[in-house]
Amino acid sequence: MRVLGVDPGLTRCGVGVVEGVAGRPLKMLGVGVVRTPSDAELGERLVAIERGIEEWLDTYRPEYVAVERVFSQHNVRTVMGTAQASAVAMLCAARRGLPVALHTPSEVKAAVTGSGRAEKAQVGAMVTRLLRLDAPPRPADAADALALAICHIWRAPALNRLQQAHAAARTPRIPVRKVTR
Amino acid sequence: MRVLGVDPGLTRCGVGVVEGVAGRPLKMLGVGVVRTPSDAELGERLVAIERGIEEWLDTYRPEYVAVERVFSQHNVRTVMGTAQASAVAMLCAARRGLPVALHTPSEVKAAVTGSGRAEKAQVGAMVTRLLRLDAPPRPADAADALALAICHIWRAPALNRLQQAHAAARTPRIPVRKVTR
Repeated sequence: MRVLGVDPGLTRCGVGVVEGVAGRPLKMLGVGVVRTPSDAELGERLVAIERGIEEWLDTYRPEYVAVERVFSQHNVRTVMGTAQASAVAMLCAARRGLPVALHTPSEVKAAVTGSGRAEKAQVGAMVTRLLRLDAPPRPADAADALALAICHIWRAPALNRLQQAHAAARTPRIPVRKVTR
Repeated sequence: MRVLGVDPGLTRCGVGVVEGVAGRPLKMLGVGVVRTPSDAELGERLVAIERGIEEWLDTYRPEYVAVERVFSQHNVRTVMGTAQASAVAMLCAARRGLPVALHTPSEVKAAVTGSGRAEKAQVGAMVTRLLRLDAPPRPADAADALALAICHIWRAPALNRLQQAHAAARTPRIPVRKVTR
């Protein structure tokens, strides 16, 4: 599976594409950052992010998009911008019919380092090792986007089983009799 | 001036179009709500909001879009959804080159009722009176969208003077000598 990870942000939106399946070596296809000038109008910045994400989707044609789930516990101003940038990323993906998965920062950290409370540097080090890179991708937002994509590849089998269980639970217990003509 | 007001929300996104200038009777051109099902995927809901806003922009061709400025002081879950819906509205407007203005809930209330702490019902009553409607628009999100548009029409002259003052303050004090050929 090919996954585009997006670490949303208005000033720096990390993007990274990883290909692979759980239990096999993973391959990085691309990594980068979509930047927007902090003195631009908010609407303009969102348009720039949309254009950037569209370019990544066009270039790498991922089958899944994994976006960091935004929480409101941090700085209010930053969180609003992060929520808005993540909305644009999800919109771009859903418009193409791509499944969008949200993972929390601690799910991502736990997936790549084994600890949900790992430091930034530890995440960067593990991303570097898992993707067999020469050095940790910079800035941290780029490394985080790759970590998101890796997290999605590794969590996907479990998430699929969960979705199937939910779907099974929703189907009616009494079988509906089929009308045969 | 013709303004589309947007009261952002994932489940109900209020939209209202008002035409007029400060100091003259205002005219409502349209009012409604863009709805998305709460059990749909977040990405799908954002796509539905985008489609809805685009329809309103196509139908009414506003010159300005006024969106409620989102704060994080309320319920965390709701605020994230509101921020994401507002991002889609701003994106749609900015993509067409339309100026986007943000007004806080208290600025809107103060503009239409005289008090920044007015109740919902009071805002509805004033919107009904100012636009000479037979009854307050329902749901409240629709009335709030019209109040946003009215607020923008009335605040626009003051905001323009403010922007001009800022622009003037940014220009260099020492005049740059023009080179004449």
